[in-house]
Amino acid sequence: MKKALKDLGEDALIDRLVRLVPRDPDPVTGPGDDCAVIDTGNTRALQLLKTDAMVEHVHFLPDTPPRKIGWKAAARVLSDFAAMGGTPDRFLVTIALPPSWPVARIEGIYRGFGECLARHGGFLAGGETTRVPAGSAAVISIAATGTVVPSHITLRSGGRPGDLVLVTGRLGGSIRGKHLTFTPRLEEAAWLVRHLKPTAMMDLSDGVAKDLPRLAKASGLGFQLDREAVPRTRGCTVEQALGDGEDFELLFTLPPRKWNTRTIAAWNEAFPKLPLTVIGKLSEGAEERLEGGWDHFAK
Amino acid sequence: MKKALKDLGEDALIDRLVRLVPRDPDPVTGPGDDCAVIDTGNTRALQLLKTDAMVEHVHFLPDTPPRKIGWKAAARVLSDFAAMGGTPDRFLVTIALPPSWPVARIEGIYRGFGECLARHGGFLAGGETTRVPAGSAAVISIAATGTVVPSHITLRSGGRPGDLVLVTGRLGGSIRGKHLTFTPRLEEAAWLVRHLKPTAMMDLSDGVAKDLPRLAKASGLGFQLDREAVPRTRGCTVEQALGDGEDFELLFTLPPRKWNTRTIAAWNEAFPKLPLTVIGKLSEGAEERLEGGWDHFAK
Repeated sequence: MKKALKDLGEDALIDRLVRLVPRDPDPVTGPGDDCAVIDTGNTRALQLLKTDAMVEHVHFLPDTPPRKIGWKAAARVLSDFAAMGGTPDRFLVTIALPPSWPVARIEGIYRGFGECLARHGGFLAGGETTRVPAGSAAVISIAATGTVVPSHITLRSGGRPGDLVLVTGRLGGSIRGKHLTFTPRLEEAAWLVRHLKPTAMMDLSDGVAKDLPRLAKASGLGFQLDREAVPRTRGCTVEQALGDGEDFELLFTLPPRKWNTRTIAAWNEAFPKLPLTVIGKLSEGAEERLEGGWDHFAK
Repeated sequence: MKKALKDLGEDALIDRLVRLVPRDPDPVTGPGDDCAVIDTGNTRALQLLKTDAMVEHVHFLPDTPPRKIGWKAAARVLSDFAAMGGTPDRFLVTIALPPSWPVARIEGIYRGFGECLARHGGFLAGGETTRVPAGSAAVISIAATGTVVPSHITLRSGGRPGDLVLVTGRLGGSIRGKHLTFTPRLEEAAWLVRHLKPTAMMDLSDGVAKDLPRLAKASGLGFQLDREAVPRTRGCTVEQALGDGEDFELLFTLPPRKWNTRTIAAWNEAFPKLPLTVIGKLSEGAEERLEGGWDHFAK
């Protein structure tokens, strides 16, 4: 039987695909981070590049309010810039949708998109619309550039043995509504890279169960997870907190000495409403897996 | 009755949508060109940004060989960089497709994409895959950055009254195969911006019937088209040459004094196999329309 997507999984697929195309002979960073990092010849800032797609029936539903769809489309990408320690710059929006869609629905998507950019930063640089056949799912694809101060850049691969693993916010149950209205953690990430300099960072899109192993693997390390410590959204089980996905909180690592009474107090003063929680640590050791988390082709 | 996409048309839709989102307060160029133009702080080059989508059943078919799909996905974007007088840089590939797709088909798409980049320039900076529901059309979305020397940049809006309108190659009948295998006119455009400095330029994606009025409108001018002069692919009528679309040839304008025995000979020496043909001229006057050409929502 031929191998289909659902048998391979997304990470393994991407690993295979990128080998088939010319790649940067002298990249600023390796592949596999939240954004690609590009040197455009500006000495004060590196450029970040990100593309992200949202699919009807997968990331939003036919009856999802269009402004929330647009907000989510922007916020997902902003969350990736946050995860690199960067800030957003230019956005390109591509919408592929059936010809029967009412114009008001598309305008609603752009309006929500615009509200998120007005709040968190970034400009529209271009838009493209194209049709899909009647009955096909609509697809919204966002591409964006960002910038990052070279000393602020934070990759998945910088974790060191013994580093604490922390998360912002509470996890799980995003499907009840947060996945459409979440706040991308740009301010929080900017604070972290200035005050604590995380050794590694990413945003939680597929759940700790998928994303913590990714961060540890990128750092060439194993990890220990304190399941009981994972901060849960009210009404969620540990399994849901680890596996639901679409939390869009920050997952990052710190040397233990950096997490002390003084820095905890500073965080609480800067972000009094947002918990910051140690959920485990990185360790020497082989790649580990956790049950659960969102695989884009498994369902 | 509510207004649907198919009643409005793509250009009018984009005009309405871009007003709903924060835009650059100090843009290098206005909206509506083949690429967005960004000043990243590098004094020797401006950055070009482009996003483009290809949809199954619209831009390729379920039985289209995957390498040709990948070639086309890359070449369409390269053609847009050519149209600005620029060169390609970094590419991001997003593929949204049903979980049943065989991995070999996706690999074929990446392989064709890679062949086109290896031939014409550009590096893969990132890839993303996501699923669409079973039965939905696959969507391939490409985002890319390019660069352009500031003195080479050529917009749609620079045409002047009396300028000649020229096209490269022969037009029409692309659906018979050329739309999957065409050569993006990067070398030709680079030659033109260095030797003739077109006043305005774009690539022909929707057919002269749609695209010439766009170029004239961007330049605030009318136009006269010499229908009999339009270079036709063997076996095509004038209507097909004007309306089929997906030619991916260059459409550009030149002051008449620049098109003389000497410059014609120089072009023929540089590109002996590719005709360059005067098909009309720009004129003072109101916006004009032509019948035909490809509207993404009209069918």
